[in-house]
Amino acid sequence: MNQYVIGTDYGTLSARTVLVEVSSGNTVAEAVFPYPHAVMDEALPCGKKLPPHYALQHPSDYTEALRVTIPQVLAAGKVRPDQVVGMGVDFTACTLIPLDQKGDPLCFSPEYESNPHAYVKLWKHHAAQREADEINALAAKRGEPWLNRYGRKISCEWALPKILQVLREDPALYENTARFSEAADWLSLVLTGEETHSAAFAGYKALWSDKDGYPSNDFFAALDPRLSGIVGTKLSENVLGMGQLAGTLSVEGAALTGLTEGTAVAVPAIDAHAAMPALNLTGSGDLMVIVGTSACHLVNGDSEVTVEGTCGYVKDGVIPGIYTYEAGQAGVGDIFDWFVKSGLPAAYYEEAAARKMNLHALLREKAQGLLPGQSGLLALDWLSGNRSTLVDSDLTGMILGMNLQTKPEEIYRAWIESTAYGLRIIVDQYERSGVPVKSICAAGGIALKDPMMMQIYADVLHRSIHIAGTTQAAALGSAIYAAVAAGVYDDVPSAAKALSASCVKTYEPNAEKGVVYDALYREYATLYDYFGRENSVMKTLGALRKSASEN
Amino acid sequence: MNQYVIGTDYGTLSARTVLVEVSSGNTVAEAVFPYPHAVMDEALPCGKKLPPHYALQHPSDYTEALRVTIPQVLAAGKVRPDQVVGMGVDFTACTLIPLDQKGDPLCFSPEYESNPHAYVKLWKHHAAQREADEINALAAKRGEPWLNRYGRKISCEWALPKILQVLREDPALYENTARFSEAADWLSLVLTGEETHSAAFAGYKALWSDKDGYPSNDFFAALDPRLSGIVGTKLSENVLGMGQLAGTLSVEGAALTGLTEGTAVAVPAIDAHAAMPALNLTGSGDLMVIVGTSACHLVNGDSEVTVEGTCGYVKDGVIPGIYTYEAGQAGVGDIFDWFVKSGLPAAYYEEAAARKMNLHALLREKAQGLLPGQSGLLALDWLSGNRSTLVDSDLTGMILGMNLQTKPEEIYRAWIESTAYGLRIIVDQYERSGVPVKSICAAGGIALKDPMMMQIYADVLHRSIHIAGTTQAAALGSAIYAAVAAGVYDDVPSAAKALSASCVKTYEPNAEKGVVYDALYREYATLYDYFGRENSVMKTLGALRKSASEN
Repeated sequence: MNQYVIGTDYGTLSARTVLVEVSSGNTVAEAVFPYPHAVMDEALPCGKKLPPHYALQHPSDYTEALRVTIPQVLAAGKVRPDQVVGMGVDFTACTLIPLDQKGDPLCFSPEYESNPHAYVKLWKHHAAQREADEINALAAKRGEPWLNRYGRKISCEWALPKILQVLREDPALYENTARFSEAADWLSLVLTGEETHSAAFAGYKALWSDKDGYPSNDFFAALDPRLSGIVGTKLSENVLGMGQLAGTLSVEGAALTGLTEGTAVAVPAIDAHAAMPALNLTGSGDLMVIVGTSACHLVNGDSEVTVEGTCGYVKDGVIPGIYTYEAGQAGVGDIFDWFVKSGLPAAYYEEAAARKMNLHALLREKAQGLLPGQSGLLALDWLSGNRSTLVDSDLTGMILGMNLQTKPEEIYRAWIESTAYGLRIIVDQYERSGVPVKSICAAGGIALKDPMMMQIYADVLHRSIHIAGTTQAAALGSAIYAAVAAGVYDDVPSAAKALSASCVKTYEPNAEKGVVYDALYREYATLYDYFGRENSVMKTLGALRKSASEN
Repeated sequence: MNQYVIGTDYGTLSARTVLVEVSSGNTVAEAVFPYPHAVMDEALPCGKKLPPHYALQHPSDYTEALRVTIPQVLAAGKVRPDQVVGMGVDFTACTLIPLDQKGDPLCFSPEYESNPHAYVKLWKHHAAQREADEINALAAKRGEPWLNRYGRKISCEWALPKILQVLREDPALYENTARFSEAADWLSLVLTGEETHSAAFAGYKALWSDKDGYPSNDFFAALDPRLSGIVGTKLSENVLGMGQLAGTLSVEGAALTGLTEGTAVAVPAIDAHAAMPALNLTGSGDLMVIVGTSACHLVNGDSEVTVEGTCGYVKDGVIPGIYTYEAGQAGVGDIFDWFVKSGLPAAYYEEAAARKMNLHALLREKAQGLLPGQSGLLALDWLSGNRSTLVDSDLTGMILGMNLQTKPEEIYRAWIESTAYGLRIIVDQYERSGVPVKSICAAGGIALKDPMMMQIYADVLHRSIHIAGTTQAAALGSAIYAAVAAGVYDDVPSAAKALSASCVKTYEPNAEKGVVYDALYREYATLYDYFGRENSVMKTLGALRKSASEN
């Protein structure tokens, strides 16, 4: 009897489930479930309007995704429930739900139906910036030891700013919250009946480490006396590393999924991170570049060092025994989409329509023959701010070098090149800080779709870029963790070796182009420091923009 | 019997003639003549290809313009030739023709038909940059006293670089040139049979001044021994100030124009400068802002000072007895056109088409409600380089502050604002250097067509902007000079007072918006210095662009 594992990848707008054969690693079926409530950023289901920068979700969408997709993949793969030995999920992070004593989301209660703070705060809920600033200032002032792990600055997307926002804006709801749970951990509870906390979410998003645990109670109390005692109560200390068993399917979990009671459920992973085992990146020096609307860059290291301006590192957070360091670029594909939507003239739309081409493909066709430096343009890729290494969401985009002959495809290529320089800044920072980068593997939609961009990345970085042949890397990674949790494989590296997706293409760097890109990168780096650290014009403009919009 | 004067304005692509009644100043008829050869920037009429940066014209287009338009305006105005007491022309500058001993353009001779250097080098012929660099370097090294008059740097558009290019590239043609004449002065010769040189062209474009004449022969000889003796031979010393008589119509001149022999012909003006008397800007402190594809800013002063980075000043060059200072912006309307052509998405074209609107009008409608600072954007208006105060054609455009919500109309407005800041840099430079600016009058197509832009200019400058109610200011100015040359008025100021166009609108500055613009202008000024003087990234990119394009 063939055995199977299931992985479900919870993204921002939908969940994707894969059914994987454990002997071959073949994905035999896939299913997608778009969330009925999608992202709530303007109003709650009851019609109540939301303040700016809110991004909420409805937890019923998450359980519904399991109820729908798991039977779908079983049917499509012609696989019986008893052939499935394990399941795992990965999730966006930090995506936080307030739960009651029974473990139910507060928003399920009619009493809280119209209270925004009772809902899931999605990773991109950006309404807690003030709280993040306060936490950073206090931690720096107190010299908190954990601050170094996170490049000396934490993001408003993380757990503590979100929790502090609830406390400050709705102390009663804060009091009535028995636990602030990652959505992923809540799914473990729903499936197994057991409360656990994934080391990935605890480590990357909730300031926890295997050595020191959470920040001290002194720190919490100094931040707000009402936070005293939060560890072990509203914040779970029952932390488990990746590849471990979160529990087994309960009767209720089996009913929800259509699987068999007692099936292994793996400790959940952070979505992008789950791609690491799926691409067989389990060794020290392996860098994974995930390029989508934004980008996430993870590299495995075997020791603990401080990498200024990156997003942090966690031991066991991705691969047991390994320190995996994370950095990110806040905007990548988003920038190209913005440009196509708002900066591309009518003639290009007409040509694309006449030739039945995608606009990006058309621009690629026109831009791919350009040599490095030929456009005369240089851009800073900060249209969504800078996540690494400046960690500053107030920064904005810049482009220079235009003259009256500058063409749209040249600008398009300049934005792509700017993201390559942004990645090189991160790679350089890793290496300078003592985290060597030995190989680079790219994943994500753009990695498969845009050969011009991948070649530019290879040329700018002077490195080979390997492309993983899967569009479902995260879900496959969840299935790999499930196979380890189920005991089919002894550990994550051996499961990854057996089940990972293969490399379908390698882009080799062109040395001649690389020399020109070196010159361009030096200019980029100068402007990076100038606008990122020396001239605060972008912040001044942001403040003026804000004040004009409030008039 | 009513008396009339005629003014003809020679622009880049066409000539415009006006017929003006001298008692009332009314323009009773107008005619336009597009040049049949337009601008030759790719090939000569014989098919010979031209090198990059060439911009040539054919002198027969200029005489043809007189032959066609003067009879047209007489007929349209029902005016007899003997009612016309004077005529004058204004011309682009420096627009240079090599003439033979008889005063005929060399290109009229079959021998030179296929020689580019035998044709008119139009003002925007930019192929003599190397020669301009050489002249600037030598003049600086020798401490040439005239260099201060021109903001310490001369442009490749001026006479000497163009002459030096001929000498270096075609010494035989240089030898056979009896005189390098401005096109305007050649027209005086054609009309009157007398050779003269207008002080405007000599002073603003050929390094001449009333006090010192041309640079010393030592300088010319040091530049190239073959230039020794050029003054008084190939360069005319028969210089006459504005408002004077160049001569009277010869038999041939009368035949060409259909006017009466003996009619007064005024000393020609530089095109933009002729607008000064047409707008009655004859007093000290009067600033004229001409805004078109590029911009020219002239201010009257009553003393001689050095204004770093401006284009120079000439006594008698516009108003007798007055020092008129000139500065310019290399790109204004050109930038907005580039943006509309290359950066405006399809939806805007569709909306404009559906509403039968001009694209600029549509963008204005969407942008006019924005408050200062609301876009969050700041731009450097250097897509054609910077003419004043940096005098650097290698500079390029820059825009920053974009995020994923930035809209095209915000970018459009940011480019407009950038040209306002560029103008303020010039006004500040005038005042700091001891040339007070007391009042500002705007002319040119954009001044009449774009109320949003004129209001932004008023707000950024904290000054009233008066708008002249004429689209033919230069031609009217030429007619005013003709009225003085004909003796109808005693001097230029009294003729201007009687015949000038009236102000049709005044934009008053909004103090509240001005405060925000002050903050934005400070940021602009910082980036102006940074990219203009400190960080040479734009030059580095330009060099890489050039080298990539040659590959």
